[in-house]
Amino acid sequence: MATQTATPSEMLRSIDAATGEPFGEPFTTHGASDVDAACAAAAAAFDDYRSRPLEDRAAFLDRIGDEIMAIGDPLIEAAMRESGLPRARLEGERGRTVGQLKLFAQVVRDGNFLGLRIDSALPDRQPLPRPDLRLRKVPLGPVAVFGASNFPLAFSTAGGDTASALAAGCPVVVKGHGAHPRTGTLVAEAIARAVQACNMPAGVFNHLLGPGNQVGSALVQDPRIAAVGFTGSRGGGMALVKLAQARPVPIPVYAEMSSINPVLLMPHALATRGAALGTAFVGSLTMGAGQFCTNPGLLLAIEGEGLDAFLDAARAALADAPASTMLTPGIHAAYTKGVEDLSSHQHVETIGRGAVGSGTCGQAGLFATTAEAFLSDEALGHEIFGASSLLVRCRDEAELIRVLQNAEGQLTATIQMDGGDTDMAQRLLPVLELKAGRVLVNGWPTGVEVAHAMVHGGPFPSTSDGRTTSVGSLAIDRYLRPVSYQNLPAELLPAELRDGATLPRMVDGKSA
Amino acid sequence: MATQTATPSEMLRSIDAATGEPFGEPFTTHGASDVDAACAAAAAAFDDYRSRPLEDRAAFLDRIGDEIMAIGDPLIEAAMRESGLPRARLEGERGRTVGQLKLFAQVVRDGNFLGLRIDSALPDRQPLPRPDLRLRKVPLGPVAVFGASNFPLAFSTAGGDTASALAAGCPVVVKGHGAHPRTGTLVAEAIARAVQACNMPAGVFNHLLGPGNQVGSALVQDPRIAAVGFTGSRGGGMALVKLAQARPVPIPVYAEMSSINPVLLMPHALATRGAALGTAFVGSLTMGAGQFCTNPGLLLAIEGEGLDAFLDAARAALADAPASTMLTPGIHAAYTKGVEDLSSHQHVETIGRGAVGSGTCGQAGLFATTAEAFLSDEALGHEIFGASSLLVRCRDEAELIRVLQNAEGQLTATIQMDGGDTDMAQRLLPVLELKAGRVLVNGWPTGVEVAHAMVHGGPFPSTSDGRTTSVGSLAIDRYLRPVSYQNLPAELLPAELRDGATLPRMVDGKSA
Repeated sequence: MATQTATPSEMLRSIDAATGEPFGEPFTTHGASDVDAACAAAAAAFDDYRSRPLEDRAAFLDRIGDEIMAIGDPLIEAAMRESGLPRARLEGERGRTVGQLKLFAQVVRDGNFLGLRIDSALPDRQPLPRPDLRLRKVPLGPVAVFGASNFPLAFSTAGGDTASALAAGCPVVVKGHGAHPRTGTLVAEAIARAVQACNMPAGVFNHLLGPGNQVGSALVQDPRIAAVGFTGSRGGGMALVKLAQARPVPIPVYAEMSSINPVLLMPHALATRGAALGTAFVGSLTMGAGQFCTNPGLLLAIEGEGLDAFLDAARAALADAPASTMLTPGIHAAYTKGVEDLSSHQHVETIGRGAVGSGTCGQAGLFATTAEAFLSDEALGHEIFGASSLLVRCRDEAELIRVLQNAEGQLTATIQMDGGDTDMAQRLLPVLELKAGRVLVNGWPTGVEVAHAMVHGGPFPSTSDGRTTSVGSLAIDRYLRPVSYQNLPAELLPAELRDGATLPRMVDGKSA
Repeated sequence: MATQTATPSEMLRSIDAATGEPFGEPFTTHGASDVDAACAAAAAAFDDYRSRPLEDRAAFLDRIGDEIMAIGDPLIEAAMRESGLPRARLEGERGRTVGQLKLFAQVVRDGNFLGLRIDSALPDRQPLPRPDLRLRKVPLGPVAVFGASNFPLAFSTAGGDTASALAAGCPVVVKGHGAHPRTGTLVAEAIARAVQACNMPAGVFNHLLGPGNQVGSALVQDPRIAAVGFTGSRGGGMALVKLAQARPVPIPVYAEMSSINPVLLMPHALATRGAALGTAFVGSLTMGAGQFCTNPGLLLAIEGEGLDAFLDAARAALADAPASTMLTPGIHAAYTKGVEDLSSHQHVETIGRGAVGSGTCGQAGLFATTAEAFLSDEALGHEIFGASSLLVRCRDEAELIRVLQNAEGQLTATIQMDGGDTDMAQRLLPVLELKAGRVLVNGWPTGVEVAHAMVHGGPFPSTSDGRTTSVGSLAIDRYLRPVSYQNLPAELLPAELRDGATLPRMVDGKSA
């Protein structure tokens, strides 16, 4: 890990999310020279790390998970206090983080991610022989990872970006989120123990703390950084994208940014179970104080039977919804302002509100507008990060489709439907799959499985690169590029491309 | 195809590459309204085209190839006159173009490109059930393709970008290159016949002619365009990248731009066959008047035995190399200027020149400099498009590695080696595979196989996106993005993701 060279004036304190009060020992923040040292260490470790046997790389990922578990309760307690999130949620998030590392360990062992391909030489082909061509994917280089505020474990220091980059063979430099320095440091120390235990090069993992506009900018601009993983706000993500594009050598930025996750309430589903849907919806809306990228911030329904029952049930459930501590005072202030602007909009009615909160507790809310108003004011489609959602009342299917087509790219799109809605759902599906990275039926978008078939990504601005996912085994693709080897003698070929190697590969167009 | 609405003053003539004289009937060029119409047609065709059965899509690609062959000799004659390239080269290029379409037809039939994945539901999992998750890749949307000057068939109207985009399920809008309007129009007409014969939606293919700074810019900025394929100059490619990034919704640009394709002459290879290497090198250098993206524009050698023999043989071969007609007067002028600047550089010596040409014929040339000079003037590393190459004399292996590490990203890197060079080659390989998309041993970089294991791509600035290839079956990935379907009933699921469907897929992490 990078040397710490800050002066006392550059110290960072943990803040108790519930009280806003600092607590515990201060952390040294890092500056330009630390960024330089971390990037130098990562670059120096790259060739060594990427050439280790896949089994060693997999064992390293497993070990990181074990070391995180070995921290025990102090990690959960630090995360609870710094984030305001409850114990059960954070224990679940820890399990998810460790499970993610183990999944990528398995992905590394399986070897499919290498994309191995061989086209055999055809020495007698006319008019020219065909050379022997062998392809594998190689890691891009050191990756900068930005920790997210809303998942202090699963999207932070040893979260999905770090796990997938390490699995790909890339060293990582993490810029920890300022809202959970203690949680991040505990995890970084666990990774450092795994580095030692597995005899990995020291620079394979580096942890920095400090202001995003200094440490973060310097990191993205460092010529040794080859790619960036980020989860956060649209403004923050786009700032990194612009920095990366302005470099002499531009690099990819995978920023997961802004999504309001439309939920379509189909007529038959509303008619048969409108009230049940209203109650379930509020459960998804208020989970984790609404602080999920996949929070259901937009409801679409055609006026008709069952919609009132849905709204009545949602209003009642909201009235019972306690105010929850939000992650930071800044997030709470932005949420409060966003809801105030929304509720005071001339074409927006308030359907229901949750309990009024004190301190940094957010008050949940459901609001409604018309399709006409929604289509004529794009501000109504902006994300409000927290437990707020807007119902758009549509006159008919055509208007609902117009609202969908007009919407920005999304992480998810959900259909609540019954059998009688199938025809309409079939017409909507082609629209939804072009707008979102994940399409759900009769579920709620919160809750993102770490799996092979998961996509947590989607068209701009839900992410800066809709061709990828930040959750699930496919996330490893973000940090790889293909290289073709032409007529290499066996002693020069990478081991996995030699004749007789056992990893899965395509030979002459056929799986082998 | 888009309506033609230009006034007579906006006509484009074919130019005979050898004489610089216009010939044949003029072509109407297109304007902003034509770009709009073409993009509207492509967008309107998208849902229909992408939902056709894969076999129909494959048959369409096959049929395009058949229709191109059916044009017969008029296509070859038009391309010869417009490009100045010889008959054998263009007949070979036509075969490659048709072979490329047939390869992508097979890729479509095989279905691996869909990346199908299923994670089965685990309804009894604790604490929460796992949903049924199914993933496929979907096409991005209408793709803008820019024809290249140097491959009037294989990288133009029905070239690799068009073939891979159509294979992915994307409609295409081609902006034909102004240097071969007749060739491009003949191919566009062939595609139009295939569209009709296969009953495809008319807007699946659209062909525009006109100035790049008007038609091309409008095309990249059109909100219905979802991605861009380009082969050409660094300036042209970066202009498109910047336009695409400045859109309200940024889109990916796959620009193949600038590469000087280092060839490393290893000591033992030089000692044992320096003269043979020198002769063979000139063959690669002067092929197609040097107008290949993979032309060997940089030679690296450690001073020593055999290098003089190499240079003597290369000088002799160059003296016998006729001047060849270049593609356009503009390319000829840029080449001549580039060679003049290089040869008059104070630290550059001229090793040998080809025959002096008249008109737009380019005079081949081999030059030499020292590693020290090369490292201290980055202009010496810039591409000169044409049959010019620069030898960098290195004192030792360390200096050679410094030159390599200092070099920009490349499409290819080549090692000329014998058995005695293996140790050094093993040390160089990790550097080369991070600098280039394709690494060759004992071949020449010109000649790019259309195959499964080919990478014609590489780190910036050889391309704007080193994570991809523009040649070979993997090129289809550029125009796809993954979508996850959660708990969809069978009647809503895409057919290839239903239980019992037969295309290859990963089920619960295992190939099935």
